[in-house]
Amino acid sequence: MKTTGYAAQSPRDALARFDFERRPLRADDVAMEVLYCGVCHSDLHQARNDWGFSQYPIVPGHEIVGRVIAVGEAVQRYAIGDHVAVGCMVDSCRDCDQCRKGLEQLCRKGNVQTYNGRDRFTCEPTFGGYSKHLVVSEAFTLRVPDGLDLSKAAPLLCAGITTYSPLRTWGVGPGSRVGVIGLGGLGHMAVKLAAAMGADVTVMSRTPEKEADARALGADRLLVSSDPEAMAKAADSFDVIIDTVPVRHDINPYLPLLDVDGTLVIVGQLGPLDEPSTLPLLLGRRRIAGSPIGGIAETQEMLNFCAKTGVLPDVEMIRIDEINQAFERLERADVRYRFVIDMASLPAPQGTAA
Amino acid sequence: MKTTGYAAQSPRDALARFDFERRPLRADDVAMEVLYCGVCHSDLHQARNDWGFSQYPIVPGHEIVGRVIAVGEAVQRYAIGDHVAVGCMVDSCRDCDQCRKGLEQLCRKGNVQTYNGRDRFTCEPTFGGYSKHLVVSEAFTLRVPDGLDLSKAAPLLCAGITTYSPLRTWGVGPGSRVGVIGLGGLGHMAVKLAAAMGADVTVMSRTPEKEADARALGADRLLVSSDPEAMAKAADSFDVIIDTVPVRHDINPYLPLLDVDGTLVIVGQLGPLDEPSTLPLLLGRRRIAGSPIGGIAETQEMLNFCAKTGVLPDVEMIRIDEINQAFERLERADVRYRFVIDMASLPAPQGTAA
Repeated sequence: MKTTGYAAQSPRDALARFDFERRPLRADDVAMEVLYCGVCHSDLHQARNDWGFSQYPIVPGHEIVGRVIAVGEAVQRYAIGDHVAVGCMVDSCRDCDQCRKGLEQLCRKGNVQTYNGRDRFTCEPTFGGYSKHLVVSEAFTLRVPDGLDLSKAAPLLCAGITTYSPLRTWGVGPGSRVGVIGLGGLGHMAVKLAAAMGADVTVMSRTPEKEADARALGADRLLVSSDPEAMAKAADSFDVIIDTVPVRHDINPYLPLLDVDGTLVIVGQLGPLDEPSTLPLLLGRRRIAGSPIGGIAETQEMLNFCAKTGVLPDVEMIRIDEINQAFERLERADVRYRFVIDMASLPAPQGTAA
Repeated sequence: MKTTGYAAQSPRDALARFDFERRPLRADDVAMEVLYCGVCHSDLHQARNDWGFSQYPIVPGHEIVGRVIAVGEAVQRYAIGDHVAVGCMVDSCRDCDQCRKGLEQLCRKGNVQTYNGRDRFTCEPTFGGYSKHLVVSEAFTLRVPDGLDLSKAAPLLCAGITTYSPLRTWGVGPGSRVGVIGLGGLGHMAVKLAAAMGADVTVMSRTPEKEADARALGADRLLVSSDPEAMAKAADSFDVIIDTVPVRHDINPYLPLLDVDGTLVIVGQLGPLDEPSTLPLLLGRRRIAGSPIGGIAETQEMLNFCAKTGVLPDVEMIRIDEINQAFERLERADVRYRFVIDMASLPAPQGTAA
């Protein structure tokens, strides 16, 4: 299938229009017209090869909402016209213990990333959601529940599941005391989701000016992390802290805030942390953990939860030809809280009908 | 009560004989003659003020086995002649949620350390087990079960419980895959205890020469951490790793060895770690935790477990006047695996009868 998208041709190039082919439908494939695609910080990292493993051309985008336009002969769950979604992965081995448990994000052989990955049969590069069409196995396709605003749902596929999954893994529910570090794309979803689960939610920020924003998102309070007195007073008072900071940072100020057996879960930074002290770990049997996105079943559960509770990200809609400016603003954290590309702004390639 | 012990008078002084008074028996106190006292690495640290909070004179020793010689009027569980033991703490607030749960080691107000602490009523300094007599509340006194070799049991009170507690907290049992980093006082107990719990036990060491020792202690194998091929092959294969290294070190080589949801538990180092990468944490939902000794009920459970299973530390018996040489050898890790002081080598102070 002919399609078109926006790609970077090298780490130094801005994103620009790029025509390419989507694979012919396999028996279990769903073809979709992409309606909306969220802009994740990792899109920027990978377009610029910040992590060192980008392959070019690269078509970013892994927060994808679309409409089914064709289905393979064996597809059972989806029909033309259905509203569907795709997140950070489009395949996995489907056979290991983790896949069998529904933890495809932890597949023993590594899952296939939605972009900058390799198809496990053909080894062809995968291209993401900054494109007009997408072809994905139905096993990695999610259903967008009725009632979920399509124009806002896209960021749930990465920012949503990345924060929903650790909240579930660490047992957050009514009365849980949850802290959230960082109020960006992930952080603002962590606040909304934890609040919707009935938790008592505290946003931790250096700047007291964020209090109104934090409360507007559903937080019960802001803890000013640059205020030593407030930090000391908050010692031992959190069950779970979701750390969404996407760069190297110092977790030592936050560890004493955890109660006995509490866990700080890192979901943002991929790489080194400043050296931690083991003192708060030993003295309070505290824990540090990491958590990556979520499995397919859990992602569907999250979408259903959001439809039921009305949780949606705060988004700023852009046109695809604004993506390079959006990247610049993202670098300055100048977005509340997630850019979403309206893919209607991308004309279909010549000779196709969307 | 007049007694005598060995104390450091300053960070630069060797330990030397020191006569002092034990408090008169309170209603719930047990007085004991100390029979054996283990030599923990933290005794050395605190005698030399390595952690910066030592008060002098300091009488170290928190792996204590003794015989009851007197009891307060309200003591119910112990009688003169009973064999008893005392570990790292001699009191706590006894009223907070942690104390009520039997987690006195995590007391909200901080527990009272067996030495270099302060009595919570009189604020007088606590003196440890390098002494002829000890007076302790029965609530912090353990029973040495019949059949446990008194001359070897002392190290169970710190090295034993410090490794037993995390093995229990993280659910180790038959079939669990347990790694142990470091083969000193704590490490050798971790191996013996995990093996007695039915776990598959791997010692991780830089030097292949330790294989025979590891197997003799009950380990199933040695993993040579300086062998990149062996380390790569061992990826994803541990449920729990007990890290007993007592100094700053790099945990990055060990994190990928954990299976999904596995935990590396730090029990040795109190202070900074080299900077960890979050990559193995996020990619395998792995965890890092700390764990301090154990509660009183769990310590008794551990002593009973050791009596039942025959687990005992490997000890080298010394006389009290050999303690300074023992400290020097401990610094060079020249002991297999724990020094124990035979307190019969310390004459009772004039005018008392032990």
